[in-house]
Amino acid sequence: MSLKANNPSRKTWLDVPDNTDFPIQNIPFGVFLTRDDIITIGTRIGDFAIDLGALHQLGYFKDIPLTDDIFLQDTLNDFIADGRKTWRSVRNRVAELFDVNTDELKSNEKDKETVLFTLDEIEMQMPVQVGDYTDFYSSKEHATNVGKMFRDPENALLPNWLHAPIGYHGRSSSIVPSGIPIHRPQGQKLPKGSDEPIFGPTRQLDFELEMAFITTDSNLLGEPIPVEDAESYIFGMVLFNDWSARDLQKWEYVPLGPFLGKNFGCSVSPWIVTLDALEPFRVEGPKPIKKLLPYLQTTDKKSFDINLSVSIKPENTDEMVITKSNFKYMYWSMSQQLAHHTVNGCPVNSGDMMASGTISGSTPDSYGSMLELSWGGSKTVKLNGGEERRYIEDNDTVTLRGYCQNHEVRIGFGEVSTKILPVFKL
Amino acid sequence: MSLKANNPSRKTWLDVPDNTDFPIQNIPFGVFLTRDDIITIGTRIGDFAIDLGALHQLGYFKDIPLTDDIFLQDTLNDFIADGRKTWRSVRNRVAELFDVNTDELKSNEKDKETVLFTLDEIEMQMPVQVGDYTDFYSSKEHATNVGKMFRDPENALLPNWLHAPIGYHGRSSSIVPSGIPIHRPQGQKLPKGSDEPIFGPTRQLDFELEMAFITTDSNLLGEPIPVEDAESYIFGMVLFNDWSARDLQKWEYVPLGPFLGKNFGCSVSPWIVTLDALEPFRVEGPKPIKKLLPYLQTTDKKSFDINLSVSIKPENTDEMVITKSNFKYMYWSMSQQLAHHTVNGCPVNSGDMMASGTISGSTPDSYGSMLELSWGGSKTVKLNGGEERRYIEDNDTVTLRGYCQNHEVRIGFGEVSTKILPVFKL
Repeated sequence: MSLKANNPSRKTWLDVPDNTDFPIQNIPFGVFLTRDDIITIGTRIGDFAIDLGALHQLGYFKDIPLTDDIFLQDTLNDFIADGRKTWRSVRNRVAELFDVNTDELKSNEKDKETVLFTLDEIEMQMPVQVGDYTDFYSSKEHATNVGKMFRDPENALLPNWLHAPIGYHGRSSSIVPSGIPIHRPQGQKLPKGSDEPIFGPTRQLDFELEMAFITTDSNLLGEPIPVEDAESYIFGMVLFNDWSARDLQKWEYVPLGPFLGKNFGCSVSPWIVTLDALEPFRVEGPKPIKKLLPYLQTTDKKSFDINLSVSIKPENTDEMVITKSNFKYMYWSMSQQLAHHTVNGCPVNSGDMMASGTISGSTPDSYGSMLELSWGGSKTVKLNGGEERRYIEDNDTVTLRGYCQNHEVRIGFGEVSTKILPVFKL
Repeated sequence: MSLKANNPSRKTWLDVPDNTDFPIQNIPFGVFLTRDDIITIGTRIGDFAIDLGALHQLGYFKDIPLTDDIFLQDTLNDFIADGRKTWRSVRNRVAELFDVNTDELKSNEKDKETVLFTLDEIEMQMPVQVGDYTDFYSSKEHATNVGKMFRDPENALLPNWLHAPIGYHGRSSSIVPSGIPIHRPQGQKLPKGSDEPIFGPTRQLDFELEMAFITTDSNLLGEPIPVEDAESYIFGMVLFNDWSARDLQKWEYVPLGPFLGKNFGCSVSPWIVTLDALEPFRVEGPKPIKKLLPYLQTTDKKSFDINLSVSIKPENTDEMVITKSNFKYMYWSMSQQLAHHTVNGCPVNSGDMMASGTISGSTPDSYGSMLELSWGGSKTVKLNGGEERRYIEDNDTVTLRGYCQNHEVRIGFGEVSTKILPVFKL
C-alpha cells in the first residue's frame, strides 16, 4: 500500500501555523478526552485535534474495513493490533479528507463542528496501555560516558556492548503522558565513604533524553522476528523521558540492574508519529565496529534523522534549551533492538513500548542527561535568570522536543513536558 | 471480616480425595475454559472445578454486592481490584455452600450439573493479565551461591543485599500457565577463553524454584505502601518457575541485569491460593543480620511455611524429585518486597506479579536451581532410569509443587509443570 499521505506538496483546508510539527503529512495517532468527557482515538493537524471515532460514526471511513468501535477506545492497542494495512488506510484517508482539494468534510459545517477540537478543549491521555516496557542502552556515547563515571574510565564500554543491543525491562505502571507531574522519589543511597545506606529524597534526580517505539502483535512464544522484517511490527514513535535517580540507581543496580532508581516514572509525548510518516527522514546509522552475528546484520538505512532537544524551566524563569541531540546517533537501530529482543522467542504484543536509552552525541552540548552534562555533578549547567543545575530541582519543568525537517516538510513529535514536585507527603 | 472459610473442622458434601491440595479450606481462584468453550472464573475443591460465573447467575451470591459480570471475565484482574472484602465474602460463601451441612446446592441436581466440572473437562488459563512482573532475589542462600559462581567467592553477597530486597523488572508477555511447553531459547554466549560471542541454543537451560504473589490496585503514582499495610494489597500466591538460560544470562547481564537469559518464559501454577487461606501457616522469617531502615522494619510473623519441591521427568522415564525447599527460608518477606518496591512512589496495579527469586535452603538438597544443584555444571544430578543432568535437556518436563500442612489441614498449590521443546524452527 502506498504512503500517499506523505505527499509533500499536499495542503490542507485547515488553518495550520507555519512550521507546525503536525502538518497534513504527519497524521499521528493519540487518545484524548473531549469537551464532552468522552474518550476517543484521534489525530492532529496543526493545532486541531480530530476525533476519529466521530468521523467513523459519520461514515467517513466507510471504504475501510473497520469495526464500529475501533476508535471508541481508551487506548490505541486494538487499532495497532489491526496491523499496518489498517494504519496506512486510515492515515491516507485522513490526508485525503483534509486535503484542500477535497470538499466532502470541508463544506459540512455540522460535521466539522463534531469532529474538530482546539487543543484547549481536549486532554491528552496515555496513547497505549503498555503491556511491557523495555529500555535499551543503544547510544555508544552515553554508554561510554556512564561507564567512565560509574565504573572504569579505562574500560568504559563493556565487552558485550558492541555485540548486542543491551537492554533491560522497565516498569509499565509508572509511564505517564506529558503534563502529569512526578514527585521526587525517596530511597536508599550510600553516603560517600560509608558502608551503611541512608534513606531520603534523591539528590541526583535526572532526565534521560530518549525516544521509544510502539509495537504491534507479532511473534508467537518461541518465534523470533527476523531483523529485516522488524519494521513491519513497529507502529510509531514517541519522545520518552526516562526519569532517573542516580544515587538510588548507583547503590542498587549491581547485579540485577536499575530498579527503584528508574521505576518512579517515565514521561512520553502523547501523539504517536507513525514510522510511515518518518519515511522521508530515513538515514544510515553508525557503521558497526565489530562484525555482527547474522541475526543483527542489516542492509538498508534503518535509522532516522530526528532533531532532539531538552529544556529546563525553573519555577519563575523562562525555559532554556540545555542540550541538542539526534536520534541518528544511535548505534543500534530499532530493527536490531526488536530482532535481538525476540531472538530467544520472547513474544511482543500490541502496545509494548521499547525505549532507545539516552541519546547522547559525541560533543558535551549533545549529552542526553544531567549526569553527563554536569559530568557526575562535578560542574553546573547554566540556566536563565542566573540559575544553575547539577541535577533537577523541585518545581523544575523539563521538556523534550523532537522534529524531522527537510526542504519540503517538517514532521514533529510535539513535546513531553513534566514538572517535578517535592517528595510525596502522606 | 472473619476468615470463617478457614475453619479446619469443616467438611464438604463433595467427594474429595484424602490429602488433596484443595480441601474446602483452600478455595483458590483461577480462570478456565469450560466444556462449552466458555471462559469463566472459578474455584476448586478436591478434583472438582467450580464455575463461579454460573453460581452467580443462579443467584448463589445474591447477598454479596457483586457486578453481574464479575466472574464472566477472562482474567481475575477486576475481581482482585474489588478488594479484600469481596475476596473474603466470596470465599466464605463458597465454603458455606459446599459445607456438608448446607443443603441449598447439594440437593439441587440441575444446578450442580451446571456449576461442577471434572478437571478433564476444563482447560486452565493464565489467572491474571500481568501488568508488570517483578522478580526479587530474596533468598540469601541463592544469592550467595550465585555470587560465588558468577562473581567473587570471597565476596559472594554484594553490599546492598542485606539492606534491601534487591529485584528487577521481568517480562510479562512470556508468563504462561502450567502445561504450556517452552522452546529452548537461542542467543549470544561467550565460549570459554574467547572474547567473541557465538550464537546458538542455550546449553545451560535452568529452572528456578520460586513463588510469586499477586497484588491488587493500591497506591497512587508517588505514594509508598507502608510495610505494615502491605499484606492488605496481596491477593494470593502461585508457584513460579523462572526459566533461565545461564550462558545467555552470564554474557549479557552486566551492567543492566538479566534480559534474554530470562524473558523467553516463566511458568505459573494456575490456581491462586489466597493469603487468607495461608493464614494458619504464618511463621517468622530469618532475623535480619543488619539493622534495617525503618521502612523495612516489621514486627509480626510475615513469612509462611510452604513446602516446595521440584521434579524432573525425562521423556521416557518416571519423574524424580531432585530438590526440596521451603518458602520460609526467604530472607526478605513479601511485605518488605512490596514496601521497598513502592517506597519511591512506583504504583502497583491489580494483577501485577512479584516473584520471590529462587528459593534455596542452606543444604545442597534444598537448592532451587540446576546452577546450584550441579554447582555451575561441575557435577551431575542423578535421575531415574540412569539419566543424569547438569542442566535441562529437550523433552524434559520440570514440575514444581508446593503445600502447607499442619495437624489439621493441608493447603496446597497443585503444580506447575512444563515440557521443554527443542529450538523453534521457522
